[in-house]
Amino acid sequence: MKIPEVILVETVHQPGSLARVLQVIADAGLALEQLTALNRQGGKTLWEITLEMDEEADRSLYERIAQLPTARFVGKSDRVFTRHRGGKIRVVSSLPINSREVLRDLYTPGVARVCLAIEKDPQAAREYTALAHTVAIVTNGTAILGLGDIGPLAGLPVMEGKAALFAELAGINGVPILIAEKAPERVVEIVSGIASSFGAIQLEDFGAPECFAIEEMLRARLAKPVLHDDQHGTAVVTLAALINAARLSGVDLCASTVGQIGLGAAGTGIVRLLRAYGIKRILGTDRNPRAVERLEALGGEGTTLRSLLEHADIVIATTGVKGLIKPEWVRRGQVILALSNPDPEIEPLVARAAGAAFAADGKGINNVLAFPGLFKGVLESGAPRFSDAMLKAAAAAIASLARGDELVPDPLDREVHVAVTAAVRAAAEAAPDS
Amino acid sequence: MKIPEVILVETVHQPGSLARVLQVIADAGLALEQLTALNRQGGKTLWEITLEMDEEADRSLYERIAQLPTARFVGKSDRVFTRHRGGKIRVVSSLPINSREVLRDLYTPGVARVCLAIEKDPQAAREYTALAHTVAIVTNGTAILGLGDIGPLAGLPVMEGKAALFAELAGINGVPILIAEKAPERVVEIVSGIASSFGAIQLEDFGAPECFAIEEMLRARLAKPVLHDDQHGTAVVTLAALINAARLSGVDLCASTVGQIGLGAAGTGIVRLLRAYGIKRILGTDRNPRAVERLEALGGEGTTLRSLLEHADIVIATTGVKGLIKPEWVRRGQVILALSNPDPEIEPLVARAAGAAFAADGKGINNVLAFPGLFKGVLESGAPRFSDAMLKAAAAAIASLARGDELVPDPLDREVHVAVTAAVRAAAEAAPDS
Repeated sequence: MKIPEVILVETVHQPGSLARVLQVIADAGLALEQLTALNRQGGKTLWEITLEMDEEADRSLYERIAQLPTARFVGKSDRVFTRHRGGKIRVVSSLPINSREVLRDLYTPGVARVCLAIEKDPQAAREYTALAHTVAIVTNGTAILGLGDIGPLAGLPVMEGKAALFAELAGINGVPILIAEKAPERVVEIVSGIASSFGAIQLEDFGAPECFAIEEMLRARLAKPVLHDDQHGTAVVTLAALINAARLSGVDLCASTVGQIGLGAAGTGIVRLLRAYGIKRILGTDRNPRAVERLEALGGEGTTLRSLLEHADIVIATTGVKGLIKPEWVRRGQVILALSNPDPEIEPLVARAAGAAFAADGKGINNVLAFPGLFKGVLESGAPRFSDAMLKAAAAAIASLARGDELVPDPLDREVHVAVTAAVRAAAEAAPDS
Repeated sequence: MKIPEVILVETVHQPGSLARVLQVIADAGLALEQLTALNRQGGKTLWEITLEMDEEADRSLYERIAQLPTARFVGKSDRVFTRHRGGKIRVVSSLPINSREVLRDLYTPGVARVCLAIEKDPQAAREYTALAHTVAIVTNGTAILGLGDIGPLAGLPVMEGKAALFAELAGINGVPILIAEKAPERVVEIVSGIASSFGAIQLEDFGAPECFAIEEMLRARLAKPVLHDDQHGTAVVTLAALINAARLSGVDLCASTVGQIGLGAAGTGIVRLLRAYGIKRILGTDRNPRAVERLEALGGEGTTLRSLLEHADIVIATTGVKGLIKPEWVRRGQVILALSNPDPEIEPLVARAAGAAFAADGKGINNVLAFPGLFKGVLESGAPRFSDAMLKAAAAAIASLARGDELVPDPLDREVHVAVTAAVRAAAEAAPDS
């Protein structure tokens, strides 16, 4: 897995001094992500250079930069760590508590009146507590990003990141909850035991296949929205991208044969939502026979990788395997979304050269486009669960805001989250019992 | 239980018009808490009048005000409810997420580097997540304020109030956690299952006697600070008040015989801490024989109410029973803290008239003086548990900041919480293994 490394390099003001640094980086096979001039003085410039590096990348790069006659390797920046210092979220009081009167209203004795109102009518908690805009972000750490089972504590930065995004993009209180259990029944017991603290439950980075049972049991047991983001958030954003890919390449999505390569949490969630969207024929493949059984239970057809590529009009890959799709397997006119990050199953340029009508990779196809509005919308509606209608409405809203030949819009565009919230809420209110 | 009711009354500008309203209130036997002129115009004044009223108070008061020739009953204000609308806490992002670079640093892919650092060294979570300043505020709703077992959801406003106070007074992230279980073993299972999400655990409004087993089991099981505030927070503030009461009345605290009336969570916590403080002789009384057994296990002596009042130099009452202590039972020179709110076991003026050297009630003897600094101090120290040394240090710090003949300082004075934090941290660092 590639993650950004930020280095600081000083160059002298001479033609080509920066170019030589960039050449050393290019020679090391590293992708440049960002270059910022931090400081220019005394005939020198200090550059902050962000690279995508593997954990096991060759650090001799730094020595080679240091050996350049017109550059100096100043050091590695800890920008990412600095931005994490003290954590990424804070809990604040909605009102300043600056007088005895406010203290007595918000705390004892005034609060007792609110407690009694909720005891009499539990619905009053929606109005007089933060419940209706508070979401638990729950993980047991078994599938954190692409890092695998690194445990819940090591997953906390991801949960805090989601909470920070909930706050910034939708005004939702996200609360990281780390579960020290792996057995689905135990996870369900614990989450059920604390569920009344929250308006909704987001399951996050639970490994497959346990994630399916955990979500299913929690949905059956709790009368509040539960969503495993890795399945359904990913599916929503993928469907949005597919809607635009089909539009841009002139393909009829529902009449197409879709091939899904990789049937883990994301792949299974995608197949499920595409079926619900109305796509009749879905082929799928995975090394794991149980994953293929799940596909078939959803109405898909298990097949081989080669056969899938031969028959599918639209190919989606979520395997994490770089270069899995060989150019010679690409069929003329195919739409190919190779979504694994950071390295797609086939580079879009390569796929297009091999005859694909449209090809894209997973850059920008990020759950953050969906989850803030999905949760805000369902909470505003008061619906007790997520429905496929809400997921499809969210995908349509995301797709509609992409501009030009974008597959999906910018996730930092606040309008996206306003639109997703409104679409989900409208879908909930249109079919309250779905 | 008395809680504030806020009414709006308009009076005409005539001598005695307000006085007549206040006379009607006094005739109804209600205590006036606050009077504010909201608006003066057209020869009239609109008053906001805060009264302490029982839930079952006689609402005909409003009619009697309306019948006054120079006043008009405008209505009840929902000031308390207005201040609760939407809840009392918000989760916010520590940094604005306003660029792709910040998004990539705080979320994927940058966050992966922080996850891996924590996987390698779990202590790194203290630095790069909010863990070290996040406290779960856990209840199962079995003893919410003086309202009894009203359930966890109806207790949520109290937990949010504590979270808001944590935020305002100590910069701590307080996270309300409602537990839908009553059996101690089940509560412990659930809290243990999510404990890695938090730096420390505050148990709140659990009923006795289950609260004792729950706290004991969690302390044995978790390597992080656990504190049942109703026991130990109350004990800290009571000890602080006692230190000042003894000083103001010239009594030697440790050489005194203390009598504790009422041995629930608060009374038991007080006895325990006073024993740890060095008070050798503690008498106690409670209707419940199991409560008296707890007292004796802590080195106290069970006795009757009358015998206690006969022999104790210092009397503390936490029974919730208004007027329990008859004036004729008061011994000359006694110190009496009748702490039940809002109605003490004996009014201070009555106790003093009956011969007490010093008497006070529970107004202002509030846990909010202690819990923000207790938790901030223990978290800053990194100590894995609370010790008696920390509780005693907190009490001494609180006591030292009272002015004049105050028993305890103003809880909204930020200096109090800075001092408690420093005292608790110093006590932790002086005896890291205690």
